[in-house]
Amino acid sequence: MVIVMAPEVTQGDIDCVVDLVRAAGGEAFVSRGVSRTIIGLVGDVEHFGALNLRSRRGVSDVIRVSVPYKLVSREHHSERSVIWVGGVPIGPSTMTLIAGLPIVTEVVDPASVDLVCAHADMLQVGTRNMQNFALLQAVGSAGKPVMLKRGMNATIEEWLMAAEYIAQRGNLDIVLCERGIRTFETATRNTLDISAVPVAQRLSHLPVIIDPSHSGGRRDLVLPLTRAAIAVGADGVIIDVHPEPAKALCDGDQALADDDIRELAEVMRSMPAMLRRALASPPERQTATAPLTPASI
Amino acid sequence: MVIVMAPEVTQGDIDCVVDLVRAAGGEAFVSRGVSRTIIGLVGDVEHFGALNLRSRRGVSDVIRVSVPYKLVSREHHSERSVIWVGGVPIGPSTMTLIAGLPIVTEVVDPASVDLVCAHADMLQVGTRNMQNFALLQAVGSAGKPVMLKRGMNATIEEWLMAAEYIAQRGNLDIVLCERGIRTFETATRNTLDISAVPVAQRLSHLPVIIDPSHSGGRRDLVLPLTRAAIAVGADGVIIDVHPEPAKALCDGDQALADDDIRELAEVMRSMPAMLRRALASPPERQTATAPLTPASI
Amino acid sequence: MVIVMAPEVTQGDIDCVVDLVRAAGGEAFVSRGVSRTIIGLVGDVEHFGALNLRSRRGVSDVIRVSVPYKLVSREHHSERSVIWVGGVPIGPSTMTLIAGLPIVTEVVDPASVDLVCAHADMLQVGTRNMQNFALLQAVGSAGKPVMLKRGMNATIEEWLMAAEYIAQRGNLDIVLCERGIRTFETATRNTLDISAVPVAQRLSHLPVIIDPSHSGGRRDLVLPLTRAAIAVGADGVIIDVHPEPAKALCDGDQALADDDIRELAEVMRSMPAMLRRALASPPERQTATAPLTPASI
Amino acid sequence: MVIVMAPEVTQGDIDCVVDLVRAAGGEAFVSRGVSRTIIGLVGDVEHFGALNLRSRRGVSDVIRVSVPYKLVSREHHSERSVIWVGGVPIGPSTMTLIAGLPIVTEVVDPASVDLVCAHADMLQVGTRNMQNFALLQAVGSAGKPVMLKRGMNATIEEWLMAAEYIAQRGNLDIVLCERGIRTFETATRNTLDISAVPVAQRLSHLPVIIDPSHSGGRRDLVLPLTRAAIAVGADGVIIDVHPEPAKALCDGDQALADDDIRELAEVMRSMPAMLRRALASPPERQTATAPLTPASI
Repeated sequence: MVIVMAPEVTQGDIDCVVDLVRAAGGEAFVSRGVSRTIIGLVGDVEHFGALNLRSRRGVSDVIRVSVPYKLVSREHHSERSVIWVGGVPIGPSTMTLIAGLPIVTEVVDPASVDLVCAHADMLQVGTRNMQNFALLQAVGSAGKPVMLKRGMNATIEEWLMAAEYIAQRGNLDIVLCERGIRTFETATRNTLDISAVPVAQRLSHLPVIIDPSHSGGRRDLVLPLTRAAIAVGADGVIIDVHPEPAKALCDGDQALADDDIRELAEVMRSMPAMLRRALASPPERQTATAPLTPASI
Repeated sequence: MVIVMAPEVTQGDIDCVVDLVRAAGGEAFVSRGVSRTIIGLVGDVEHFGALNLRSRRGVSDVIRVSVPYKLVSREHHSERSVIWVGGVPIGPSTMTLIAGLPIVTEVVDPASVDLVCAHADMLQVGTRNMQNFALLQAVGSAGKPVMLKRGMNATIEEWLMAAEYIAQRGNLDIVLCERGIRTFETATRNTLDISAVPVAQRLSHLPVIIDPSHSGGRRDLVLPLTRAAIAVGADGVIIDVHPEPAKALCDGDQALADDDIRELAEVMRSMPAMLRRALASPPERQTATAPLTPASI
Repeated sequence: MVIVMAPEVTQGDIDCVVDLVRAAGGEAFVSRGVSRTIIGLVGDVEHFGALNLRSRRGVSDVIRVSVPYKLVSREHHSERSVIWVGGVPIGPSTMTLIAGLPIVTEVVDPASVDLVCAHADMLQVGTRNMQNFALLQAVGSAGKPVMLKRGMNATIEEWLMAAEYIAQRGNLDIVLCERGIRTFETATRNTLDISAVPVAQRLSHLPVIIDPSHSGGRRDLVLPLTRAAIAVGADGVIIDVHPEPAKALCDGDQALADDDIRELAEVMRSMPAMLRRALASPPERQTATAPLTPASI
Repeated sequence: MVIVMAPEVTQGDIDCVVDLVRAAGGEAFVSRGVSRTIIGLVGDVEHFGALNLRSRRGVSDVIRVSVPYKLVSREHHSERSVIWVGGVPIGPSTMTLIAGLPIVTEVVDPASVDLVCAHADMLQVGTRNMQNFALLQAVGSAGKPVMLKRGMNATIEEWLMAAEYIAQRGNLDIVLCERGIRTFETATRNTLDISAVPVAQRLSHLPVIIDPSHSGGRRDLVLPLTRAAIAVGADGVIIDVHPEPAKALCDGDQALADDDIRELAEVMRSMPAMLRRALASPPERQTATAPLTPASI
């Protein structure tokens, strides 16, 4: 942590900050410049939080220099994690296709988490609930893997903080899912933040997958964005597939239909290998959507 | 509702859309232009929703021409509403100051709504929960006035839709609260969307107030933004006041302290009258923060 | 064009709009619904623009149903274009790598366009100048291919309108370049809008390429984003390569160094073929950055 | 400046940074924490820029702790400036109304600056040109006051940097104008960032005014936003007034007409005094729009 003092700071103000930090068990190193004095803090950041340093006289800014999440961070767990969901791995050496929406079920209310757990292999926290802390707490204690969709207005850091909140309840089986953020652009429903995949993978050991169906909100974007997801290094993709592909052409805004599914199978067959990944996909799903059985892929 | 057909549309595609609309009990008026054909729909929009018109062959775009919320809209209720909270009005002819945070209590979990109802005059739905539909449903059935903060990533239309969702449970005692939206600017915590007040008041009959404390996240912005809130025509302001003003200077990032409260009292004494509004403020609050008693204001 | 009338509209208001449209040589079809009346306009949109319809009494909204750009649109030119730059094609059946920054030169001032033309194969309009109309006019008359970077705050429609502005001066040799937009996310310098590639390619016949170096602003994102760019269907990528790769490790924030270039060459060798594209790259560049000669790729 | 080292940093990496800083004439203070080492830099920031510290081995982040603009900053010029335009002051003790658009003329091309200077009292740099550096350079040398509109995608810091760029050419007669930023909200053309006024006034000594006409793009928002502008502490407002008020009702989307102008005059008569400001307005404008002459206000 670094304290930047205001230009008009007095020696008394500086001493006051140094004393506070030492009383909290930390060390403070003062660097006095021509126009600015800065104070470097060493010690447990948790203790410094209670000091309200930002409001002390003479303090201009307080800058955090370490990440606020620990359990999900790669700093202390450099190897990337593999999460197993219904017998299928999601992680760094596989590309997992989740299609048909049978093993992942969204929960929107803490009261219904137990019920959903009884029937689903994985709980999904949706984009509108990423900061619903009552729900995060409930899924953190549920003993099932969790797919945490990024809030459409959440920074990557806030997304990882939400994951940390789940992890603090003892559940580290978390898969992060990028699904688009809200921007000024209206040609697509949301803007898929494709860069979030390598950025989040560098900061956290958790797997990161992409939902190309919901960000665009248009069927014609699903395949190009799926290819981009695999190419950028995502650990999986979750795709809306129409339950009756023959009807999809007239019914669905974003669900894939027959032709698209054949092309998707072709993409899945050829691209992951190029990224040195093996294709993985849940057995339940394969039954549900015949065109994607291992034989055809 | 207006259907815009694609340039390469066939007569069969047009007939198909017209037939669907008529079968749903609506009327369809076809306007054929040189480069585009458009179809105007007349009838109950709710019925058209199920037709999946956007996915029909030859359809390029579907444009809604009426607002999707009814109960909170001014279209059928042109007079602006007054909501009474603990004996204090919030509405078009008053300026209500909510300060000290004793009558409004935030609820974050449907399971705790009953408990909070027993102790608070008003339930607050916070910015992170504006689209937590389980919670909206619970407060809609709770029989207490609700302060609905705008989601930091919500459009004004989505905010009004969330209010509609509460209203549909039978509760129309809703106060809308603008508290800043997320933008690219980082000098302030959020960007106060001051224009949202006149825009929302024109679209909805519900009162609209402003929270100048949380949008800026800085004490030095609270008074300027409070003045702007009154001047733009807000029906009230909700302000963080420190429980021990003498300590606020060193303790609080955004809560007002002694000097600020004196200036706030001066603003409240002079500005609302200029906008032809009477000052109203909850009695509990007046007790808690002595400088704002009717005598001093 | 569709005119949506206000709920309280009178017959006189409707007649007034219809008369105005007819006087301007257009046709107006009135669809009267229970709660709304809409008027469909058929004829030359250019003529309607001068009528100020949005400000007429009783008018609630005016909705455009065709795109405002013509020359760069695919509506009247469905085949995607190939632009030749210094003997190298950029278009739908090739993947063009522009690296080393020797054939494309940015112009920032109309007065310097002639000078730059004498030395460059292609003029670049940068993100900050996408709506600098004096500059667009100058490059539109310059007789050289233009790379038009998307403004970091521009919608895809505004980007195509800027291209239309260049095209109206007689120059249709335009390559669109997506380079990231400004959003609330600060982990990357800008947010690469990868979906903009298929969206713009569907709306316009012009080639669309991606700049993965500037959007992220971080060297470790360049390769993943380059792979994503090829996979999503971009017609090319423009990449910062350090002039002295050996020094890049300590000198450049986003320019690629030796190891990266070897991996880039590998990506370029394998990926375009998967998308059924042939690799194309400017001969000058190949000389400048030896590791990317055809032999090594 | 503060250098944050990566967790896995070596003593050699630290020594290397310290040596570089000392060789550039600065001092470096090392603070070694349990999980992080930080290095505080003291000296001339300009010299450190060339060191490419962010790219050095072991460096995780480089944090600037002083503002990058000097001439327009309040750090070294704490008193707020008054700019005189055609005999009218714009500054901290007045509220200046600029209406009718006769003394301020926009320049869009460096080549036309001289011509505009001959006829205008003030040059305007529009929102799309805020980072058109060729134009900023030209107006910086023109010897006329400049109104610098904030770019619709510019942070407050970038806006002040653009002002600094003009000031570096010797022209400090700059008035900053907030006119709305681009966000996800589409109910208004742009989102007026009302907080930008107190924030910019705290950071810079230059006057800050508001344009309530262009941010909203709707006539019904102009008066509420004008009141908010005065109340928040703006040093002036610039308002679109229709040249023929009688025609404005049918012609203008955002220009004020007769009734509005009477209400504007009333606002101008009563509000500035409440903020302890005297009303100031250009004499030319008063002639052009009779309802706003001193007699009537």
